[in-house]
Amino acid sequence: MRTPSIYLRSVGVYLPAMVGLRTAIAQGRYPADEAEYLRLGGAAVAAEVPAPELALRAARHAFGRAHELSPADLDLMLAVLTCGHGEAWQPDWQPRHYLQQHLTGEEVLTIELRYGCCGMFSALEMAAGYLQATPARHAALLVGADTPGTDKHGIDKHGDAGCALLVTSDEGFAAVLSLDSAAPHEAEPTERTLRDLVDQTLREAGITPTEVAKVAFPHGRRDSLASGTVTGLGLTMADTTWDYGSCIGHLGVSDQFLALDHLLATGALRTGDHVLLIGHGADHALSCAVLRMLAVPAEYTSLPALLFAWPGLFTDPVQVRR
Amino acid sequence: MRTPSIYLRSVGVYLPAMVGLRTAIAQGRYPADEAEYLRLGGAAVAAEVPAPELALRAARHAFGRAHELSPADLDLMLAVLTCGHGEAWQPDWQPRHYLQQHLTGEEVLTIELRYGCCGMFSALEMAAGYLQATPARHAALLVGADTPGTDKHGIDKHGDAGCALLVTSDEGFAAVLSLDSAAPHEAEPTERTLRDLVDQTLREAGITPTEVAKVAFPHGRRDSLASGTVTGLGLTMADTTWDYGSCIGHLGVSDQFLALDHLLATGALRTGDHVLLIGHGADHALSCAVLRMLAVPAEYTSLPALLFAWPGLFTDPVQVRR
Repeated sequence: MRTPSIYLRSVGVYLPAMVGLRTAIAQGRYPADEAEYLRLGGAAVAAEVPAPELALRAARHAFGRAHELSPADLDLMLAVLTCGHGEAWQPDWQPRHYLQQHLTGEEVLTIELRYGCCGMFSALEMAAGYLQATPARHAALLVGADTPGTDKHGIDKHGDAGCALLVTSDEGFAAVLSLDSAAPHEAEPTERTLRDLVDQTLREAGITPTEVAKVAFPHGRRDSLASGTVTGLGLTMADTTWDYGSCIGHLGVSDQFLALDHLLATGALRTGDHVLLIGHGADHALSCAVLRMLAVPAEYTSLPALLFAWPGLFTDPVQVRR
Repeated sequence: MRTPSIYLRSVGVYLPAMVGLRTAIAQGRYPADEAEYLRLGGAAVAAEVPAPELALRAARHAFGRAHELSPADLDLMLAVLTCGHGEAWQPDWQPRHYLQQHLTGEEVLTIELRYGCCGMFSALEMAAGYLQATPARHAALLVGADTPGTDKHGIDKHGDAGCALLVTSDEGFAAVLSLDSAAPHEAEPTERTLRDLVDQTLREAGITPTEVAKVAFPHGRRDSLASGTVTGLGLTMADTTWDYGSCIGHLGVSDQFLALDHLLATGALRTGDHVLLIGHGADHALSCAVLRMLAVPAEYTSLPALLFAWPGLFTDPVQVRR
């Protein structure tokens, strides 16, 4: 669907310390030949930091970048947290409550939401409807985090992270032009459904494929991405954020939004550029969004931002205690 | 908020076998004096039937009552299931997928959502925004289920059930006039926040408190409900569905929607009546909705419907194996 008057005010990210693949290989925790073939750099591993805390840190980052908005201004918070209920500090404990306690207070409506690795897309879809439903609503915070890197107790293609999107109905650095979800009918190939979904979302955004500056996919295997999806959409790997993803791992719900932050931080996006975000979750769930850059926020143009934009440059800084 | 053009097409319910309190008392599993004081009749206990299956049965019931709508017509399914992920049949198993597999197919966008015992209200709020966002969308299915009765391994004030609401943007037997959520600021009493919330929701619905025919609260202790909330809102216990709730237990997210079904089945609602649904979840979350009955559906006026409307009349039919 078209999403008029839905803007990103800021993006917040929290990426835990990286475990470089050289470390993992040296420790015998990852096969050297596969790493070379897949060209992986490493993964972010949260270790003892649970998903709600990753989300909280990303949310604070997002508010730090949105000077005129504070948590009290929120009409809605949607939390995409793939962690258990009643398993942590106390029975019947609700992860969303952690965010309310430490960020917004209880008076901000906070709903948890799950849609596998496309969860942040669903949150964006729900928030768009919620904000559009009445002019009295202005701002929603979407936070997502999971810890597949840590939960699997070993480095593989998964990493941990938190991300946050401040979504408003009035202004922001990017306009969300259109947003769609799909899943293939039985016996229909996923590639074809994805192509149709991308076509539809671009059409609704009013742009052609050639007007897309960058595409953020879920972080995954280079070979399957390159041979299937990317060429199927008429793209090259250089159009994607795969190289960044290969350094931090597949982060569950956060891939495309960390990638967006990275594109901005590395100067790869300019005002007027269009970005395509593509989600692919369990059970063949597919999501797609088109953004138009209205501005490059000031936080991305400072020297420290540029220095820290490439975690892959600093491989093996931390070994995770286990 | 006002929710123009949001209708309930049908309500589906699934209530497992009742465990009468006399049985539980005889088995030494519940104190007789407390049962007498609280005037409890029993609770529905699902035993081996997990929450996604309860939800599925309720969903099928709802479709059975909505002859012109089939699962393929859905634009959205929201599943409010307070059960774990990756703990059942297989790792990374997503409860929502069970509903897609057995009901809608994967092509219907299906998102899980959690907001404690107010989860179905949140689902209604999200679905309303989603359907209103574009005229191309017509129908959403909201399914809710949890198993606090079974999970706690003993009868108390909790029961198990599934409920389903078919929500459309064109027509139905009830119009959802308004819908709001709130949580008290720190140090503010919950009673007062609830009163303000009810006032706001009634005002948005365009009716006065005296125009409310029935009120469905969460099923809970008679004494606290009677002394606090009910009198605080200028109601009597006869205005509520407490007597029904006392026979089936607090069902988590399903209370108010089983109660709505019960009110219709017992002939307590007529065309033109207004019903107030009130949710009160963990962390003081509060929700409120106002419905206007546009018709009493045919399924509620048949003889079998009337016979089966009172599970409390058939106490102790089944003893749950443990």
